[in-house]
Amino acid sequence: MNPAQAQALRELLETQPVASLGTLHKGEPFVSMVPFAILPGGTGFVIHVSRLATHTQDMLSSPPVSLMVLAPQRPEIPAQALARVSIQGRAQPCAESASDYAEARLAYLARFPQSADLFDFADFSLFAVLPRSIRFVGGFAQATTISPEVLADVLSSA
Amino acid sequence: MNPAQAQALRELLETQPVASLGTLHKGEPFVSMVPFAILPGGTGFVIHVSRLATHTQDMLSSPPVSLMVLAPQRPEIPAQALARVSIQGRAQPCAESASDYAEARLAYLARFPQSADLFDFADFSLFAVLPRSIRFVGGFAQATTISPEVLADVLSSA
Repeated sequence: MNPAQAQALRELLETQPVASLGTLHKGEPFVSMVPFAILPGGTGFVIHVSRLATHTQDMLSSPPVSLMVLAPQRPEIPAQALARVSIQGRAQPCAESASDYAEARLAYLARFPQSADLFDFADFSLFAVLPRSIRFVGGFAQATTISPEVLADVLSSA
Repeated sequence: MNPAQAQALRELLETQPVASLGTLHKGEPFVSMVPFAILPGGTGFVIHVSRLATHTQDMLSSPPVSLMVLAPQRPEIPAQALARVSIQGRAQPCAESASDYAEARLAYLARFPQSADLFDFADFSLFAVLPRSIRFVGGFAQATTISPEVLADVLSSA
């Protein structure tokens, strides 16, 4: 991944607050919207979801998920050329008792301070999405696949 | 679905040119980006994809897909409250010999005139996404599930 691609990927993930989450629902793909934040060190992502939601039940019964983040539309860019990244990974409940819970919660609230109230709702909880493979499409014919280690490097560099 | 919801759903699908496509990839969900158009009569959607792309191979081996369309972010709307619709359906190759090919192509090119050249590429073809169930979230606590028939009504009314 060259420096320009790395910068574009970092900018995409740091500026876009929502992702498309793909879960396995009764054996079929199901796509929903989730606000997301980046875990410290760029090791993955954190989402805050309701136990009452379909995607949460899906993640509990089948951890493999896909997270897609898309750049906002701009009139001068054809739809096909919009930058996006598809992340294949595993969803993992982030228990309040876990050692990394506090920093995951902080990362989430840093991005979504208005969500603090939702942490008082019994049905809401944090899940980490831990990447296995990352496919970044920076534009026309600009696709590259990177590892979780490279992603962490990209997200950790200033 | 009340008239305000119907109008919001119609506006979302008519103004947003891209969707998040969930396909089944080796038994796991995979989310990618696709430009989409609405089929005549609102009976479904049409996408134009390359045989070389992962999602196309996925659709050929497993037709159930999910299509999610999200409203653009606006500073005054919390991420969690963005309008979006998740469509569960089946992907079906749209052969050039099929009776409905011409109108599907026209619908696609009406939205993406700059894609005309891609129709000359041998690896690109049209797929229809035919909905089975539609979940519209208009904002906080404003979710409703509708049938393909209701969706067609919504998309056909002026």
